[in-house]
Amino acid sequence: MSKEITSRAQDYSQWYNDLVIKGGLADHSGVKGCMVIKPYGFALWENMRDQLDRMFKDTGHVNAYFPLFIPKSFLSREAAHVEGFAKECAVVTHYRLMNDPNGGGVIVDPTAKLEEELIIRPTSETIIWNTYRDWIKSYRDLPLLINQWANVVRWEMRTRLFLRTAEFLWQEGHTAHASEADAVDETLKMLEVYRSFAEDYLALPVIAGEKPENERFPGAVNTYSIEAMMQDGKALQAGTSHFLGTHFAEAQNIKFQNDAGGMDFCNTTSWGVSTRLIGGVIMTHGDDDGLRLPPAIAPKQIVVVPMLRDKPEDAEVLKYCTDLVTKLSQEVVFGQKLRAHLDIKKIKSAEKRWNWVRRGAPIIIEIGPRDAAGGVVTYMRRDDLRDGDKVKSIAKPLQDFLEGVVQLLTEIQAGLYAEAYPRRGRPRGKPLWRRGKPASSERLRLRAS
Amino acid sequence: MSKEITSRAQDYSQWYNDLVIKGGLADHSGVKGCMVIKPYGFALWENMRDQLDRMFKDTGHVNAYFPLFIPKSFLSREAAHVEGFAKECAVVTHYRLMNDPNGGGVIVDPTAKLEEELIIRPTSETIIWNTYRDWIKSYRDLPLLINQWANVVRWEMRTRLFLRTAEFLWQEGHTAHASEADAVDETLKMLEVYRSFAEDYLALPVIAGEKPENERFPGAVNTYSIEAMMQDGKALQAGTSHFLGTHFAEAQNIKFQNDAGGMDFCNTTSWGVSTRLIGGVIMTHGDDDGLRLPPAIAPKQIVVVPMLRDKPEDAEVLKYCTDLVTKLSQEVVFGQKLRAHLDIKKIKSAEKRWNWVRRGAPIIIEIGPRDAAGGVVTYMRRDDLRDGDKVKSIAKPLQDFLEGVVQLLTEIQAGLYAEAYPRRGRPRGKPLWRRGKPASSERLRLRAS
Repeated sequence: MSKEITSRAQDYSQWYNDLVIKGGLADHSGVKGCMVIKPYGFALWENMRDQLDRMFKDTGHVNAYFPLFIPKSFLSREAAHVEGFAKECAVVTHYRLMNDPNGGGVIVDPTAKLEEELIIRPTSETIIWNTYRDWIKSYRDLPLLINQWANVVRWEMRTRLFLRTAEFLWQEGHTAHASEADAVDETLKMLEVYRSFAEDYLALPVIAGEKPENERFPGAVNTYSIEAMMQDGKALQAGTSHFLGTHFAEAQNIKFQNDAGGMDFCNTTSWGVSTRLIGGVIMTHGDDDGLRLPPAIAPKQIVVVPMLRDKPEDAEVLKYCTDLVTKLSQEVVFGQKLRAHLDIKKIKSAEKRWNWVRRGAPIIIEIGPRDAAGGVVTYMRRDDLRDGDKVKSIAKPLQDFLEGVVQLLTEIQAGLYAEAYPRRGRPRGKPLWRRGKPASSERLRLRAS
Repeated sequence: MSKEITSRAQDYSQWYNDLVIKGGLADHSGVKGCMVIKPYGFALWENMRDQLDRMFKDTGHVNAYFPLFIPKSFLSREAAHVEGFAKECAVVTHYRLMNDPNGGGVIVDPTAKLEEELIIRPTSETIIWNTYRDWIKSYRDLPLLINQWANVVRWEMRTRLFLRTAEFLWQEGHTAHASEADAVDETLKMLEVYRSFAEDYLALPVIAGEKPENERFPGAVNTYSIEAMMQDGKALQAGTSHFLGTHFAEAQNIKFQNDAGGMDFCNTTSWGVSTRLIGGVIMTHGDDDGLRLPPAIAPKQIVVVPMLRDKPEDAEVLKYCTDLVTKLSQEVVFGQKLRAHLDIKKIKSAEKRWNWVRRGAPIIIEIGPRDAAGGVVTYMRRDDLRDGDKVKSIAKPLQDFLEGVVQLLTEIQAGLYAEAYPRRGRPRGKPLWRRGKPASSERLRLRAS
């Protein structure tokens, strides 16, 4: 069907790239290792980000913003952390350009050298904890439950769009607590937020559990993760939550007055997910025709394509489609206004259909003069189109379609999860869990309390 | 009243700093020239950003994300642009750190030098237009209406929180059009979005008009701005919208096939506002007691302080307050759910009151046992508290208060605007407008069409 897309059987890696680029999510950029997230891909990220942000706020967190730069000396304070993170990173050494006196365009002004080099944050622990030191004086200031949405940079030689890029977007939660029990509880609570987000919104079946010692976050006491299984049988780490004990507080000398008047080190956590999750969604649900996006996060949940033929009935078709989109947009699904889109681009209708198949719109509606005249909605389900299948069109009276549309989107969401579920299980290759079998987050929660 | 805050008469500059820092909006950071936006300040920015984002989307724009880095050679393509922008900027020259063999912590690995230096974006024109070249092939691809929310860096020696920092947050719109008329129309449309956002949401009276030639954006044909007048009589440029003609398209060689089959250069625009707007809000509405935030963007529109005294009636007071916050949170004001906050921090009630005065919460409610027992709401309006005034408490039956609360917040919003309005007018000092008198955006719009 979609000859433009390499099949998974032929070349899995090329298939993935085709889905990202031809699905309109992202492009390579003029900067080595950095991607451009295109409007369609960014709308997907916005939906993911906004939902996660609501879940963070519902669990008592607030957002803040910390500097992009980390002074090099900050990295010397936590040796283990530096060992693991801060080696491959972008280093700012100068702060001015000048015109080349020899006429060769702009050059770096050699006199504008920084006294201390600045590192572009690969993660923000060191700068954030340096700040928290002034904010945490007493047990009354705790817990401190802060999240940051930011761009971070880790120098990568071999990059893959969304999965591994030099710059990527993410969120990093950094919390401080008066007791170890509170911090462990927070670590597992956020693991559970990630699990529920991945399963309920991304339709990714995941296993939540503890990572083995050698895969711990540098400086962490325990690292937990959610892991999803891709179609090539490889596990993808989709989110991590770390219990850091008092390691960071000790390294940064962050003490608070406890309610008995003594001085204690804080217990801290950190947790994060990134645009890499988009890679997980692509590899879990995509097929040889293109993307299949879960309705809960799809930028366009329903696309309406008017079948125009430069004939007088076009006006009626367009009006019918516009009304349909207006009505659909009043529905609420997955807690948000339904996202319906009228595609009036000046290209052929058949081309539009395949554009939206490739881009993974959950429901594609095509309306011709007969549909408009008869009050019918003719649609196809992206989840029901198996690789290379002929399109199965379903026709329904307008009122029936409208009454059932929320249910239909919910069904598609559940169907994608169910289809991916059998792949879930213990990942092949390396042992992921320390305690023999994967611990469910429910069990982890019980154990910790 | 607030001895902690320097008065405007005493030291305007120190007053501003006190409002930012003691109002809990931002802090200086461990990185020279960079600020930390604290949770309260970031919530303010989120409300501003989300409202602007809705206005951008309502006018047909979508968001995307482009790389943080700009290869140095990109800056040689638009000489005027570079001249104006790219001189004081952060330059990445290396991509790896290593342990100092002499034991001095981490040092930059001298062998890991980039072949071409990367500039941290001071603005993204060059990288974005390098990308658009591949996206714009035909008139069918136009208009391209894209916005980016991002951090940018301009090296500044003398910084002021929000007003001028090395790193700041902003949005930058970059659009491409098939005709000059379309691009001019877009430029003025976004100027009008900024004017309406500033006046209707920030309660900032602004003058929208065209900048003189010597203040144009480097490379622009026309630059328009909204300017607000601060309490010290100085104008603050609060947002700019640029008509770039075909300058950038020519520099980047971006041509498209027009509907007659010929090849044309695009006409382009760019427009932006930044976290500097927060500085404008502070300086326009603040008084000697602290911040006064317009209800439309205030993180907490109403704060409820239970007057607890470690007595049995506390339980009843707390329940009454909780119910009140629940009821208030169901109201809709300025198109969003009302933001009501219950302050149960373990500090004295009087301290809480002055915290929220300083932080500029529009309405502060204090509930004691008598209020709870009598079904009364006792509140004060932050806008009605003149510098050093004694607090004027108003008591109303609960039901009356609830029925009038949306109206009350709307009144406060309008009052702040009206109070600032007389300061609006032609800024002192340099002439801001090319054509004698300030052109209203309405007139500009007419002239352009």
